[in-house]
Amino acid sequence: MDPDAVAKAFVEHYYRTFDSSRAALGGLYQDASMLTFEGDKIQGAAAIVAKLSSLPFQQCAHAIATVDCQPSGPSGGMLVFVSGSLQLVGEQHPLKFSQMFHLMPTPQGSFYVLNDIFRLNYA
Amino acid sequence: MDPDAVAKAFVEHYYRTFDSSRAALGGLYQDASMLTFEGDKIQGAAAIVAKLSSLPFQQCAHAIATVDCQPSGPSGGMLVFVSGSLQLVGEQHPLKFSQMFHLMPTPQGSFYVLNDIFRLNYA
Repeated sequence: MDPDAVAKAFVEHYYRTFDSSRAALGGLYQDASMLTFEGDKIQGAAAIVAKLSSLPFQQCAHAIATVDCQPSGPSGGMLVFVSGSLQLVGEQHPLKFSQMFHLMPTPQGSFYVLNDIFRLNYA
Repeated sequence: MDPDAVAKAFVEHYYRTFDSSRAALGGLYQDASMLTFEGDKIQGAAAIVAKLSSLPFQQCAHAIATVDCQPSGPSGGMLVFVSGSLQLVGEQHPLKFSQMFHLMPTPQGSFYVLNDIFRLNYA
């Protein structure tokens, strides 16, 4: 399993899901999962999905610029660091963002998101 | 110990050291430490310091815009996510950057950097 390939596949899946059916992101989080979104701290899959679903835009399209990944230690986790831009419907210019995910392995051989930190990069 | 206060103190210490005596950053890394700098992957404190020391500028000044942190799991680690800007001597405009650190506790009650990912945010 090539970690870079796993990271890239995760990131593509994450933003494709975000842009098409945000509520479906719940399956990627668990009760211990944490999201810090523009400084707001949220814990647990249900609360995270509620937060993401409540963002004040309906349609958006993420474009990924870079994906970096590193193993996070002996627990088999993986850190994924993304930069990109976010185009909202009705906005002329895309917003640049950075986001990091800490992916942890599940017993089923998949990953869930334990940590998620998102920031817009204001120009 | 307030994690946000620890993260903020670490970040201030890190960039103050970077901007004054980059070689002294070696004390914050260990052999297992990883740095991904603009896509380049480096492992180990000595190689990381060599990389940081070889960057093609002598003087710089980091300005921190945001610091977010989360616990990274049962190992007592902490994820620190930073956005800010980097002013190089002789350059008119600062460069925006994002960086994440995964801090792990040491037996002495301090932290070292296990993971470090840095990206410039091109406008």
